[in-house]
Amino acid sequence: MTRTRIHNLSVSLDGFGTGEPQSLEEPFGHARHRLHEWMMATRYWDTEGGSVGVDHAFAQQHGPGIGAEIMGAGKFGPPGWQDDVEWRGWWGENPPFHTPTYVLTHRPRPSIEMEGGTTFHFLDATPAEALEVAGAAARAGTSGDDVRIGGGPSMVRDFLAAGLVDHMHVVVVPILLGRGVRLWDGQEGLDADYDVESVSAPSGVTHLTFTRRGAE
Amino acid sequence: MTRTRIHNLSVSLDGFGTGEPQSLEEPFGHARHRLHEWMMATRYWDTEGGSVGVDHAFAQQHGPGIGAEIMGAGKFGPPGWQDDVEWRGWWGENPPFHTPTYVLTHRPRPSIEMEGGTTFHFLDATPAEALEVAGAAARAGTSGDDVRIGGGPSMVRDFLAAGLVDHMHVVVVPILLGRGVRLWDGQEGLDADYDVESVSAPSGVTHLTFTRRGAE
Repeated sequence: MTRTRIHNLSVSLDGFGTGEPQSLEEPFGHARHRLHEWMMATRYWDTEGGSVGVDHAFAQQHGPGIGAEIMGAGKFGPPGWQDDVEWRGWWGENPPFHTPTYVLTHRPRPSIEMEGGTTFHFLDATPAEALEVAGAAARAGTSGDDVRIGGGPSMVRDFLAAGLVDHMHVVVVPILLGRGVRLWDGQEGLDADYDVESVSAPSGVTHLTFTRRGAE
Repeated sequence: MTRTRIHNLSVSLDGFGTGEPQSLEEPFGHARHRLHEWMMATRYWDTEGGSVGVDHAFAQQHGPGIGAEIMGAGKFGPPGWQDDVEWRGWWGENPPFHTPTYVLTHRPRPSIEMEGGTTFHFLDATPAEALEVAGAAARAGTSGDDVRIGGGPSMVRDFLAAGLVDHMHVVVVPILLGRGVRLWDGQEGLDADYDVESVSAPSGVTHLTFTRRGAE
């Protein structure tokens, strides 16, 4: 069975999943690295010196059981990457996905095979259509049957609105960005469909898990 | 020394401090009691059967050391209360303030002395002007020198924007209201002025404390 999962989705206290403006130099805009400092301090990220407490325990769930990822165009590159035939993502030759990875864009291009098991595929598709393709790829592979919904925040909103998210891990970082892309817009009553748990970490962030009622 | 303090300010995960529309029947609009269920389950609120854990520990800080409160017009009554000369607040004859309580309104009326130490005064004043009056009243009394900023969320925003908040306790409730009055609008960078701590409670809410750098 394929579940759709979201991991390590960091938002500010005022609900912004990224700052503005997004650019090649600043992928998260004025938020810079502030939404992800909690993660960069964990063993999951910093394999030599990172901490192994609650932040690590959540962060490392990103990989296991995942057989494919779907991401939005804004996660794959800065505005205008579709005009750059050389663009291969932010992550160098060995991206941290290690599975088929589907990039949603209205301007698809040929697939790109990277090192470490990541292949980028480009789809002009609805969330449901993309999930069908990614789920089939996951089940055909050996990494796991689940599909990770990779973000950014506006594509997560689309998947939530379509009722296509089984598990969501959100990290509330106690900063106030004031502007950027909101995660929560238009989600009135979402919590009625999920069991929600919260735990604060010594780093100051709070981990929230949303588990869809009836999903395992 | 007078400090300004905010306590038990509950917001939804998407940052709404109250729902809509506010009315006599539903003071918190479509949020109803959902933002405050955590508090109603504590010994602070339910003196016979309430819990005495972390939620209670935070909730009961509402009173000690406070010598006056300032509240917004929307906390004192439903829209249009200014036209009802009989309106004396939502709380019956013994309101839970027990100090001089200043209601900010563009249509002041004579003061109302209630039971239990609460007297409502009505001020058409800026946050700084109101604080001057309330601080003097607190220091002249015996309950404590501090002034509580009582809410609702839009008047809290005004006091934050004026740099007049020393301590703020915010309770993030894991529900998504989708609409209402936002607490965090226009607060970009607020966290730079405060030490922020977070702790989650078994009830599912997360308590955040903002302590102004340099304030005790």
